[in-house]
Amino acid sequence: MPDSAVTRVAAAYARIDEVDRPEVWITLRPHAEVTAEAVAIDRRVAAGERLPLAGLLVAVKDNVDVAGLPTTAACPEFAYAATTTATAVTRLTDAGALVLGKTNLDQFATGLVGTRSPYGAVRHATHPELISGGSSSGSAVAVALGIADLAVGTDTAGSGRVPAAFHGIVGIKASLGVIPAHGVVPACVDYDAVTVFAAELDLAVTAAAIMAGPDDSDPRSRAWPADVRLAGAARPTVAIPRPEDLSPLSPTYRAAFTETVAALSEKGITVGEVDISPLLDAARLLYDGAIVAERYAAVGAFVDKGADGLDRTVAGIIGAARELDAHAFATDLDTLTRAKATAKALLTGYDGLLLPTTTEHPSIAEVTADPVTINRRLGTYTNFCNLLDLAAVAVPGTPTADGLSFGVMVVVPAFADQLAVDLAARLTGIAAPLLVDTGVPLAVFGAHLRGQPLHWQLEQLGARFAGEITTTDAYRLTALDTVPPKPGLVRHGPGLGAPIRGELFLVSPGGLGRFLAELPPPMALTGIELADGRSVVGFACTFDAAITATDITAHGGWVNYLNQR
Amino acid sequence: MPDSAVTRVAAAYARIDEVDRPEVWITLRPHAEVTAEAVAIDRRVAAGERLPLAGLLVAVKDNVDVAGLPTTAACPEFAYAATTTATAVTRLTDAGALVLGKTNLDQFATGLVGTRSPYGAVRHATHPELISGGSSSGSAVAVALGIADLAVGTDTAGSGRVPAAFHGIVGIKASLGVIPAHGVVPACVDYDAVTVFAAELDLAVTAAAIMAGPDDSDPRSRAWPADVRLAGAARPTVAIPRPEDLSPLSPTYRAAFTETVAALSEKGITVGEVDISPLLDAARLLYDGAIVAERYAAVGAFVDKGADGLDRTVAGIIGAARELDAHAFATDLDTLTRAKATAKALLTGYDGLLLPTTTEHPSIAEVTADPVTINRRLGTYTNFCNLLDLAAVAVPGTPTADGLSFGVMVVVPAFADQLAVDLAARLTGIAAPLLVDTGVPLAVFGAHLRGQPLHWQLEQLGARFAGEITTTDAYRLTALDTVPPKPGLVRHGPGLGAPIRGELFLVSPGGLGRFLAELPPPMALTGIELADGRSVVGFACTFDAAITATDITAHGGWVNYLNQR
Repeated sequence: MPDSAVTRVAAAYARIDEVDRPEVWITLRPHAEVTAEAVAIDRRVAAGERLPLAGLLVAVKDNVDVAGLPTTAACPEFAYAATTTATAVTRLTDAGALVLGKTNLDQFATGLVGTRSPYGAVRHATHPELISGGSSSGSAVAVALGIADLAVGTDTAGSGRVPAAFHGIVGIKASLGVIPAHGVVPACVDYDAVTVFAAELDLAVTAAAIMAGPDDSDPRSRAWPADVRLAGAARPTVAIPRPEDLSPLSPTYRAAFTETVAALSEKGITVGEVDISPLLDAARLLYDGAIVAERYAAVGAFVDKGADGLDRTVAGIIGAARELDAHAFATDLDTLTRAKATAKALLTGYDGLLLPTTTEHPSIAEVTADPVTINRRLGTYTNFCNLLDLAAVAVPGTPTADGLSFGVMVVVPAFADQLAVDLAARLTGIAAPLLVDTGVPLAVFGAHLRGQPLHWQLEQLGARFAGEITTTDAYRLTALDTVPPKPGLVRHGPGLGAPIRGELFLVSPGGLGRFLAELPPPMALTGIELADGRSVVGFACTFDAAITATDITAHGGWVNYLNQR
Repeated sequence: MPDSAVTRVAAAYARIDEVDRPEVWITLRPHAEVTAEAVAIDRRVAAGERLPLAGLLVAVKDNVDVAGLPTTAACPEFAYAATTTATAVTRLTDAGALVLGKTNLDQFATGLVGTRSPYGAVRHATHPELISGGSSSGSAVAVALGIADLAVGTDTAGSGRVPAAFHGIVGIKASLGVIPAHGVVPACVDYDAVTVFAAELDLAVTAAAIMAGPDDSDPRSRAWPADVRLAGAARPTVAIPRPEDLSPLSPTYRAAFTETVAALSEKGITVGEVDISPLLDAARLLYDGAIVAERYAAVGAFVDKGADGLDRTVAGIIGAARELDAHAFATDLDTLTRAKATAKALLTGYDGLLLPTTTEHPSIAEVTADPVTINRRLGTYTNFCNLLDLAAVAVPGTPTADGLSFGVMVVVPAFADQLAVDLAARLTGIAAPLLVDTGVPLAVFGAHLRGQPLHWQLEQLGARFAGEITTTDAYRLTALDTVPPKPGLVRHGPGLGAPIRGELFLVSPGGLGRFLAELPPPMALTGIELADGRSVVGFACTFDAAITATDITAHGGWVNYLNQR
């Protein structure tokens, strides 16, 4: 039996006291207030309600609104009292999660270091002399310290991934618009993603799936396309950068990436080198081009007023963007549009691109001495993702020789998020959880089974294996006179057949429609009753084929029949 | 038998001589050269090749590349020799069309008047003292004068629609990216659409369908989504502006719009007033905001050099855009993103929005006297379309009291192009041709027939009626024991049944997948052989339902059975 929400809350506040990291929080909610909410959750669970995140504790980056709490974006003078809660956070609390408080960040989410805040530099969870990474610094550290189960971040340049890499935790930056950005202080409003951190991939994905979905209050919200891919190849191929593309890495990071790549083949992953220089070129446009004017558009008028609480580096970056030209912005947008097409072409034929999340792990002292150059280098492999409409899942790679966490990302084109999750699951050795939830179940019994001659059709449509199944005893299995040989599943009625073994797949509605459009006679698709009580779309055959076919029900399934005939 | 291509070419050149409108063309190809191509087309047709546009003559706006001809964008000093042909034009010539030459335009496609060109103001086809409209002036006039069957235009602010309105012809501006913009001199590169003009809607749509489709050479190319809607409601509802939104119209245009709207009900179209002020506000951002910096990004460096052939008004607009701020551009982009969501919400529940294409029909003298104010007013109803990712089909409305053409547009959200075409077809009294060609045929025989209780499911998925059908004689029809009552079409084999009547629909792959996912037992979908030789997806039922159902084959169809039982 899992801990009660009340117990979890008590443990979290005890841990907060124990770790003594006040810089993690900008606003920590009173223990009693969160406990009161926990009591309510425990009652609902006791009453039988299904709350997938019941009693899990969430830390929310302080550029994301939670009604009743101030939103500071790490600038005290910018603070306002939020009256609504960001859609993504509401979806978590609707699922039973409890908000602990608001976390520190690089001011206005501008930075990858975690030091750019008047609320204090956020120290690394286990190596306090090192940076935590940012800008979602407090969120990542709250998870890494075992205070929060989940943390909400944002990620424009890598803020939801770099601090994950430094802490050996997971950060999910879904395709832009999939997780609504309603209720977020914009950094670059066209390139801001709401992200989630968790210690383990499965919880992070579960949370991301709950946070995802169209939202009328976010004009950039996007639904999964009708033909979204739900799986990659059974034996995936991953693109990796050429050696020269890895020159920005520190020696220990370079070694850790090499070891991470070396371990791929034993995880069943094939690698192929690609030239990622077009991505690295695009990355530079985020701060060195005119796109940074989006940061000025968001908070420039405030920054120009020169509040005491402004971080000097952040204010310098945003203030300088005031002078940029609109035509330079237009030119950079055009460059990005071309680079987007290049990136898509580059990744064609691969299930994803594996990259180091960041380049090195600097100390706070190093970053303080040189606040811009190191920060820029840290974004080498993350900056381009949102600019080029790519999704990324950041997970731990092989740790460095000196025992520090080292992170890698699986990067995929927009909406191929499930493929990134699946590769990340292979990397971390867990069963791949479901992020994209729009798949239609499809039951197959013959030539489309894994290992059978037409299975490639399902792979081509991005269909996802979802388990072995058995029908009710209403079905008889027949061997049809087709090329290649196929079975015909024929419904006779309850008790008139036998349980027949098959496999279940999930496929997008568009994929299912295309599959049906190409289905040759005498095959048909209809509702099939499974032994577990579900009714799913699955194979049947036409009447004339059924009555002339050979009954093979006694074999209990097509593969058995093939093996025994 | 249609005229040969050679005959058509001869007639076109005779017409060119006859009309004496040299300002229409910037480059007219030699008669002999086009004739040689016509000979080749005639040979291919005689050899049995199917060329849907065989021998049709195309005029191409001179900001669109045709290999071997100069591209001037209406500025002699800007001219370059095109070495490739724009994808959209190649698709037309691959279908048998012949390019006559390159047409005059408002320089750099900046204008809606047709007077902004050192190659001369393009005069209206039948009222030469009036403007032709622009920027695709020569293209529209070439069609209106009966020289070209088709003309390729471009449309950023309304250039593919305003000159159509002035000439009583059709202009199709599909959703951005659907017709590739490869090979086009950019105006505002993110908002440029390649368009087509024709005298009649069916030819315009046929050409647009041929020009449409993904193109790797255009990074902004977009495919029809997997769940694209292929039809609106059987009894469509059209949004129209409130009276106050029509105040920019001249009195004669106002009267013509009122008459056009009054005629809708007899065409089976219901109307509902909406507040289009958010669209009109967005429209102003195209020239009065910072987006015009895209024009500077495209050709500003050239304009700054101050060539003799620059149009003073155009150079003034583009040159001024040099001074705009990047953060203002970012702010305008954000405003547009919000307006895009507003526009989508505004049109929800309607099959389209009917608007006057433009506000008035000025004379060349009036525009010469005031080249900016009138031009701006002309774009009142067209400017916002591409900014807000809307598609539009421009067709003739009721002519004005003084006998001039008056044009209207059907405006729809991105990818709802087929709905706009269908409404335009109703307006013009023709059968609606097919623009979106990704539909899967689906044969229905019972409760999904038009007028039957489940037909709404097909409407909801945007399925399109595609005709009555009859199966081969391999099928028997049964009455199933379902609620509502449904027939089961059961395949017994050739000669063992009878031709059964049904209806064919086209539905998107995503729509078909969703339909199948919701299909209750005992219904099934399979390949159905039609009497005309086609094999399409259609209804069947499970074996157990088929053997216990009542045979009603003798009725020849479900509706007959319902009427006779």
